[in-house]
Amino acid sequence: MRVFNFSAGPSTLPTEVIELAGQNIADYKGSGMSVMEMSHRSKWYDEINNECLALVRELMNVPDDYAIILVQGGASTQFEAVPLNLLKNGKADYIVTGNFAKKAFKEAGKYGDIKTVASSEDKKFTYIPRTTREDFRPDADYVHITENNTIFGTKFPALPDTHLPIVSDMSSCIMSEEIDVSKYGLIYAGAQKNLAPAGVTLVIVRKDLLGNEMPICPTMLKYRTQVDNNSLYNTPPCWAIYVMMLNLRRLKDMGGVKAIEEINRRKAKMLYDYIDSTPFYTNSVDKEYRSIMNVPFVAPTDELNAKFIKEAEAEGLVSLKGHKLVGGMRASIYNAMPVEGVEALIDFMKRFEKANS
Amino acid sequence: MRVFNFSAGPSTLPTEVIELAGQNIADYKGSGMSVMEMSHRSKWYDEINNECLALVRELMNVPDDYAIILVQGGASTQFEAVPLNLLKNGKADYIVTGNFAKKAFKEAGKYGDIKTVASSEDKKFTYIPRTTREDFRPDADYVHITENNTIFGTKFPALPDTHLPIVSDMSSCIMSEEIDVSKYGLIYAGAQKNLAPAGVTLVIVRKDLLGNEMPICPTMLKYRTQVDNNSLYNTPPCWAIYVMMLNLRRLKDMGGVKAIEEINRRKAKMLYDYIDSTPFYTNSVDKEYRSIMNVPFVAPTDELNAKFIKEAEAEGLVSLKGHKLVGGMRASIYNAMPVEGVEALIDFMKRFEKANS
Repeated sequence: MRVFNFSAGPSTLPTEVIELAGQNIADYKGSGMSVMEMSHRSKWYDEINNECLALVRELMNVPDDYAIILVQGGASTQFEAVPLNLLKNGKADYIVTGNFAKKAFKEAGKYGDIKTVASSEDKKFTYIPRTTREDFRPDADYVHITENNTIFGTKFPALPDTHLPIVSDMSSCIMSEEIDVSKYGLIYAGAQKNLAPAGVTLVIVRKDLLGNEMPICPTMLKYRTQVDNNSLYNTPPCWAIYVMMLNLRRLKDMGGVKAIEEINRRKAKMLYDYIDSTPFYTNSVDKEYRSIMNVPFVAPTDELNAKFIKEAEAEGLVSLKGHKLVGGMRASIYNAMPVEGVEALIDFMKRFEKANS
Repeated sequence: MRVFNFSAGPSTLPTEVIELAGQNIADYKGSGMSVMEMSHRSKWYDEINNECLALVRELMNVPDDYAIILVQGGASTQFEAVPLNLLKNGKADYIVTGNFAKKAFKEAGKYGDIKTVASSEDKKFTYIPRTTREDFRPDADYVHITENNTIFGTKFPALPDTHLPIVSDMSSCIMSEEIDVSKYGLIYAGAQKNLAPAGVTLVIVRKDLLGNEMPICPTMLKYRTQVDNNSLYNTPPCWAIYVMMLNLRRLKDMGGVKAIEEINRRKAKMLYDYIDSTPFYTNSVDKEYRSIMNVPFVAPTDELNAKFIKEAEAEGLVSLKGHKLVGGMRASIYNAMPVEGVEALIDFMKRFEKANS
């Protein structure tokens, strides 16, 4: 029996996508091979790679002056790849809105003059700090933001107003709602939340930002290495990219990002509305900054939190434990979480509240 | 119908391993989730990760003073991670025996004083150059070798005699035969040939070599990052590691590396013996340096090579096209290629020879 899996990542995938991946797993399209075994130079894999990249371009409406690549190493590797590729003047400005934003800032510090222009650490990352155009250094190479903060359940309500290229870690909100890619310099996202199984990372970069790699930049972290080779410079994580393609096909079939955004907003509203309707549960994020992907909440005591997690699991509502930095519960309700999962969670929350008030 | 897949990588996996991976793909061990969806901090994934690492240690008899980690990025990333982690005196010596060895040498050059101490490029990489202890610089930090050369079909008959730590790229020969890990400083291997689907890389490193990272070494390329975190610093490529575990379990069940080595030697002998028995096919590698994993060979003309590849494919003997640097054919006969596959190939070769002589 499938559970409702609220894990922050790796995360639930649509059951039909997993079952499709499992069908004829040892013989893809009559090739006599699994996608796990075929040469990345084969016609079959070439089709998979090209379709996956084309689906990203179509679903996100990526303009032609942006390159799309698939790489390995997760967002953590991008924390270093970004400065190694984009630091031209040696300066970058970071907005620090959570744990991963802090890590990104720290890693970049090895490679240049990196400045925190705004931070919400003063209030335990429960909001997104406002910035104005004047906050950014005129000669900085980019502004880095973590657009959705997985641990703290916050999200930028709008992009910062800046003349600098915006680099956004969209790992936990990629393709969850429509965005205007042309407002970004670079977008990166570990795939294991909204796109695919773990092991592949999506990078979308405005082409005019390429070509400024630091001499010490490892070839494998250099964006041009994969841009120039259609993401086939070396052996890619073929299976993860195959499942990503299946998942994006499904997203397209259901109406694309616009359609899933509507569902995502509905799921998030249901959950936040219920939390706000009762003093039993608390979400401490300022309303305008609430994530529609990650919803942290707490019951009145640590004991009740522990009991909640245990009893929810027994009902097939799993991976609800909050990150250790926040405690309590966290429901990650990514694209693949069906409305029924959120309904089941709210139903359980109501019964739990009644039994423990 | 399953084919015999002679691809150099990604490569054939045992049919039973793929089918096992496909069984209950949407519900692993009653968890209600696929391994593709579960948190890497879950008890299920923790077991998979630990069993996989333990199987590597057991199957390769890895001594306690060596750390074993699983990383992303393939051997190409290790070409840079190795110097970034191990250059203490800033010098390293490389033996260049093929295309990937050359790449490894070139990438390392960004980070130190890197010397080619021997090369077989003079004879198109058809042999392994001999070295003596005096060839190596006394103050070099390590010697790098590419133990099996996938493209050229050569293999080191023995490790070089040196006082320096030996760093070996074993991507295309890992676990193909018994080795003494204690003779190495570091071993790395992209998993997509003998171990797993693409997307995971194995690194085995003598612990006393850790701790010398260059300050510019990205955290994600630093071995200590994963050594200190049991390969769970960030989200690992869970599915590839799961299939690796299934594959290693099978290898253990069939008698381990000793048992597969015997089969591998038998397969290679059958194929080389047949090639050597007829003037129709040629393998130009010096006999003592022949790989038991990758067997390149040519028919008398380019036209016949093309015809061979096409007709073999029609019989379900696929991915036999040689690398463009060598031409002709290449049969990669990794651990998962059954004896029957090599028998079928030889049978086809005989018929093709008869029909085209």
